[in-house]
Amino acid sequence: MSVDGDELKDSHGPDHPQSVGWTRAQKMTLFTESHKPLVLESGGVLRSVEAEYETYGRLNDMASNAVLVCHALTGDAHAAGWDVDPAGPLREFRHKKPGWWDSMIGPGKAIDSNRFYVICVNVLGSCYGSTGPASINPETGLPWGLSFPVVTVGDWAHVQMELLSQLGVKKVCSVIGGSMGGQIALEMSLAYPERVSSAVILSAGHRVTTQGLAFNAVGRHAIINDPNFNSGDYYGGPQPIAGLAAARMLAQITYLSEEGMGYKFGRRLRGKASPDFTLTGIEFEMESYLSHQAESFVRRYDANSYLYMTRAMDYYEAAEKWGNGDLTKTAARIKARTMVVSFSSDWLFPPELCRELVSAMCRAGCPVSYLNIPSRYGHDAFLVETEAVRRLIAIFLKDSTG
Amino acid sequence: MSVDGDELKDSHGPDHPQSVGWTRAQKMTLFTESHKPLVLESGGVLRSVEAEYETYGRLNDMASNAVLVCHALTGDAHAAGWDVDPAGPLREFRHKKPGWWDSMIGPGKAIDSNRFYVICVNVLGSCYGSTGPASINPETGLPWGLSFPVVTVGDWAHVQMELLSQLGVKKVCSVIGGSMGGQIALEMSLAYPERVSSAVILSAGHRVTTQGLAFNAVGRHAIINDPNFNSGDYYGGPQPIAGLAAARMLAQITYLSEEGMGYKFGRRLRGKASPDFTLTGIEFEMESYLSHQAESFVRRYDANSYLYMTRAMDYYEAAEKWGNGDLTKTAARIKARTMVVSFSSDWLFPPELCRELVSAMCRAGCPVSYLNIPSRYGHDAFLVETEAVRRLIAIFLKDSTG
Repeated sequence: MSVDGDELKDSHGPDHPQSVGWTRAQKMTLFTESHKPLVLESGGVLRSVEAEYETYGRLNDMASNAVLVCHALTGDAHAAGWDVDPAGPLREFRHKKPGWWDSMIGPGKAIDSNRFYVICVNVLGSCYGSTGPASINPETGLPWGLSFPVVTVGDWAHVQMELLSQLGVKKVCSVIGGSMGGQIALEMSLAYPERVSSAVILSAGHRVTTQGLAFNAVGRHAIINDPNFNSGDYYGGPQPIAGLAAARMLAQITYLSEEGMGYKFGRRLRGKASPDFTLTGIEFEMESYLSHQAESFVRRYDANSYLYMTRAMDYYEAAEKWGNGDLTKTAARIKARTMVVSFSSDWLFPPELCRELVSAMCRAGCPVSYLNIPSRYGHDAFLVETEAVRRLIAIFLKDSTG
Repeated sequence: MSVDGDELKDSHGPDHPQSVGWTRAQKMTLFTESHKPLVLESGGVLRSVEAEYETYGRLNDMASNAVLVCHALTGDAHAAGWDVDPAGPLREFRHKKPGWWDSMIGPGKAIDSNRFYVICVNVLGSCYGSTGPASINPETGLPWGLSFPVVTVGDWAHVQMELLSQLGVKKVCSVIGGSMGGQIALEMSLAYPERVSSAVILSAGHRVTTQGLAFNAVGRHAIINDPNFNSGDYYGGPQPIAGLAAARMLAQITYLSEEGMGYKFGRRLRGKASPDFTLTGIEFEMESYLSHQAESFVRRYDANSYLYMTRAMDYYEAAEKWGNGDLTKTAARIKARTMVVSFSSDWLFPPELCRELVSAMCRAGCPVSYLNIPSRYGHDAFLVETEAVRRLIAIFLKDSTG
């Protein structure tokens, strides 16, 4: 197996030998027995949960080769390959490109589907197939909207572990995720130390920064104050796209870095040599980029889910939850061999924050490796610095069971 | 004169010997002669401009002791003392506190009104007394709204220099400003090198960063897409306060630093020991702070002005304007003795950007001094680090004429 070579730089078509090929999302209904509903950390109860997931490769006889890949805020279960049957208006974009981490997952790739049974589960509360605010509340026959209970990173770990159990996986070989997915990977290691052999946490930490809380608050404010929001009850009517667009534009800034933006856009005007002196139109390439990002996003994402996802990220504080505020005590729970990766220009989950976690793990005697990769791609680097991430994950997984 | 002493830390009442006392905004109509309208850099023409300003101290016989203080984005002409006659709904807040730089301006203070004739002018396009989008267009009898021409930092310098001329000031002893006001101070030195003896540029630079462009774009997006915005024609009707609030919340984040926010708010919940698990309510102190800032801001600021101010900041690029992209060639125009001050945690006008300007001035042989002050207060530091700024300005002005 090789993770080298420029031929891996971009994703392949479904017929390429290193592609997982055509994929089809699967669904499993969890917590269906009436005596075992899903009790959420918020106190909410769900009497049944539908989880959308994809798998690549095969589970071996010992059920020892499962790798759980956890998606980020606006991601989905379609991590690799080409979706044979994208359904619903929110999924039209799937036709055009392969899974969000196709560069990493496939036969002979860093997360080698010849060796591993790779699983990616859409998180609870999302709008991509798993139960969420746009789903029908069986008790009313109407979409949940904001009556959907608040979910947390802990709940996501709980649901994903339940799905793994149903798939016959008692102990997962590795849990790998970036950003929000990295929070889930960490939480899996903390909540189920006996069931996680190794974990890779990219561009994530044990909490969001205060600035992160603030940015999420502004994004939600923009959505909630959109007149079409209607207290979250907008399904079938006009959507709160202006608010969601503002939230996405703002978030997009936090995914890049000043250095990266300066390099890519600088102060270049959009298709003109001199400004038009317009207040409401586009002048700069930077503005054009943000507008396009937002336009494409509002077609594929649900505003309510955006509220649920960001709130869950806000609430997560591993040390508060597991160590009474003591991060070293928290880290001492972890039995998984762990790799933490940060990127120099990431200011959403900055290297200093990752180092707090890594230091605590070192103090607690955890087998942890840590790398800070120089990059100008900011938070997005975990998806953009493909070559570096691919090498690190391949090396990390080399000696894993499977 | 002393700038030391804790007694100067906070502002005084109007009767304190170091207060400029009760003040009253003055107005002057400029560019009134029909053959001399104000031609703006955008190509727009204004046949007359009303400028609101305040002055403290007296112009000396040689007219050599004028200090022009330039306000920041949402500031006004009321820089010091207590307004005897605040007018209009937007100014109600003036009753409650002294001018925005009262800590710096007054008898015996750093900008000593016993020595200097201090002038502060509200910028064109603002909503605080000078002609702007909320003013009546004499040709229609209606508020300008977005038909008000686009203004630039160069236009602001032009108008303020015109006012100085009318006040009998041929050469200004010093031009001092922070943030947007620092952009004006720099532009005054570049546009009128023979008329500016010295300049103090705080938390500002020759351009905004690409990130700054992006943040401004998101703020404007939120305003423009507020359904009450109505293409800027909302006077007399409901105001686009939701959009303006989002813009302000976002801007507020850029005025602070992660370190400062972490210190002040961290992850503390607002008035409770455990979260309520609410998506639309306030959970964290950080959110509460942003909400309160926004609520107070929308009562005192006009959304259209916000568009004009931020756009002007976007457009300003001193090297493009004066040196064909060459910052050293640009700096060579400057004859003023200059002090540039940055703050370590300012990421809106980061120290690196200030150093670009200072390096260019050094290469051009300008008499420039530069200080980077360690601070956790981010961009706001130029208003918060009163003691450091007071000492620096006092020392800088010590040998000035006046």
